[in-house]
Amino acid sequence: MDQTVLLAHGGGGVQTQELIDRIFKAHFANPYFTADDAAVLPLGHERLAFSTDGFIVSPPFFPGGNIGKLSICGTVNDLACMGAQPLWLTCAFVLEEGFPLADLEGIVCAMAETAKAAGVTLVAGDTKVASKGQVDKVFITTSGIGRLLGNVHTSGALARDGDAILVTGDIGRHGAAILLAREEFGIEAEIESDCAPLWHLVQAVLEKTDEIHVIRDATRGGVGTVLYEIASQSQVGIEIRQEDLPVDPRVSGICSMLGLDPLYLACEGRLVIIAPHKEQDRLLATLRALPHGEGAACIGSVTGRHKAGSVVVETAIGAKTLLPRPTGELLPRIC
Amino acid sequence: MDQTVLLAHGGGGVQTQELIDRIFKAHFANPYFTADDAAVLPLGHERLAFSTDGFIVSPPFFPGGNIGKLSICGTVNDLACMGAQPLWLTCAFVLEEGFPLADLEGIVCAMAETAKAAGVTLVAGDTKVASKGQVDKVFITTSGIGRLLGNVHTSGALARDGDAILVTGDIGRHGAAILLAREEFGIEAEIESDCAPLWHLVQAVLEKTDEIHVIRDATRGGVGTVLYEIASQSQVGIEIRQEDLPVDPRVSGICSMLGLDPLYLACEGRLVIIAPHKEQDRLLATLRALPHGEGAACIGSVTGRHKAGSVVVETAIGAKTLLPRPTGELLPRIC
Repeated sequence: MDQTVLLAHGGGGVQTQELIDRIFKAHFANPYFTADDAAVLPLGHERLAFSTDGFIVSPPFFPGGNIGKLSICGTVNDLACMGAQPLWLTCAFVLEEGFPLADLEGIVCAMAETAKAAGVTLVAGDTKVASKGQVDKVFITTSGIGRLLGNVHTSGALARDGDAILVTGDIGRHGAAILLAREEFGIEAEIESDCAPLWHLVQAVLEKTDEIHVIRDATRGGVGTVLYEIASQSQVGIEIRQEDLPVDPRVSGICSMLGLDPLYLACEGRLVIIAPHKEQDRLLATLRALPHGEGAACIGSVTGRHKAGSVVVETAIGAKTLLPRPTGELLPRIC
Repeated sequence: MDQTVLLAHGGGGVQTQELIDRIFKAHFANPYFTADDAAVLPLGHERLAFSTDGFIVSPPFFPGGNIGKLSICGTVNDLACMGAQPLWLTCAFVLEEGFPLADLEGIVCAMAETAKAAGVTLVAGDTKVASKGQVDKVFITTSGIGRLLGNVHTSGALARDGDAILVTGDIGRHGAAILLAREEFGIEAEIESDCAPLWHLVQAVLEKTDEIHVIRDATRGGVGTVLYEIASQSQVGIEIRQEDLPVDPRVSGICSMLGLDPLYLACEGRLVIIAPHKEQDRLLATLRALPHGEGAACIGSVTGRHKAGSVVVETAIGAKTLLPRPTGELLPRIC
């Protein structure tokens, strides 16, 4: 293993997992320490979900949102993915000396609005200021507490042979929006981030059936990374169909130009939901009737035909190839 | 108000309060949003405390600890100050590309040890990596959940005329240790940070009496800042006696050389406890019998003789002067 921290250690892929295993798990090992989006903790007669997430997106303002909106959505969605109703959030800011207060207010405004839309309350905060050059503009860490619904039990380890794999909308829009906002490629296109709080979608599907096995939000590593994580945690094979992947044509266009795969572009408002195929139709109908779920689609299956831990793509012409594993740095780096 | 973020906005003094009032309170206003160290939240038959704190200390390793130990102590103590037993913590790292993994491991080790000593469990984490120069080595944000003891109700707003003001040990040691660790002044002295988790002290004093009015940990702004905050929140006058302030002679020496006031040097393992004078003796006896409480002392009183919101110091020769208000940047900047 490398002897210093690499950008790839923060990419959400294999190296991130190595760092977690070697350093964090080795020292923090305990029964509650989670490999999922949030820890599940017993308190009296309740089960709590508890989660934390750091946000260092550059640029902090982008079409469809800003780092403030993102920081609320990220933690709300991590709690939601555990089947927990998000209740309370805290936020910790690290601000660079010289950061415009008007920008800070824009960020805080977006946080308040998004929290309201998500039905959560911001209960505590912390502000540190770093000298100019000691931090890049603004970092935000949000943490959240949610309450698990009665008998919900979802986990990345519960995908089973024969399950359908759903996504709640078109993929890769956040990554593409950030890429364009950087203006490094001279490409002009109007792409808005998909960034959104999604508890209402989770609540709706959990009300439809007790048989939801996995709910994950596809964030920095995109849908491809999430699928590999699930394949590994559940020790199953996964097959997806290229032509069933919902991708906005503008996102496809950018991916073609830059040689990127939308499966590895970040989403910040998309869930991967895994449940038995018999539930597929009414889950899709439920999702499509709700905001941020209009573009829901079934993209493939969990299947015993492929090796445990592998993700296979059936291309438009019917060929089946292994999806390249998520390794190394994110392209583009969006956090 | 200034139009960009200033270092003083992070100093924990008047400007920090202005920033909180103008930007955060203005948008996040809700009944749970806290001015204390942690929010108190009802859940079923329990009351939870929920807190977050960011750590950006430079250098990350110093005599008596490192940023990892500090990040656990800070959140454990914030929960403890609400009369809440700290239970679960999360940690979010922002690492600079190129940061040595051995140093990261040293930090994580200290976190695990300190968590164990404090009786808390680290349940979830997050790691982001920033490009070289985008962050200064390592930032850590910890968040914590605690459970409030039965009928405990402490707050910075509950100090009353006639109360005694206790500190749990000598003050300013963390600030002095960081100052020396920077090696900017060419002063050599062996001063260890007071950094320590303090729930056991809080638990012990709460078991002795139901009449604890205020518990606060004196962190970045030092004891002076905490006293001004309490004087303002409780709308009371405070008087302290210079000669009763416990200060390590090496810390006094450095303060004399550099023109600093130990009341405004950071502590990371010291509580300010306010309770009726009649409780003073047995509280001091209780504290002095416990680790990190050996140097406990009564340093003054809450008194109607001074204007609400003011903190007065009686000097060694009996003169009474207003303690200068905590404004502007921390000297030294320790976060």
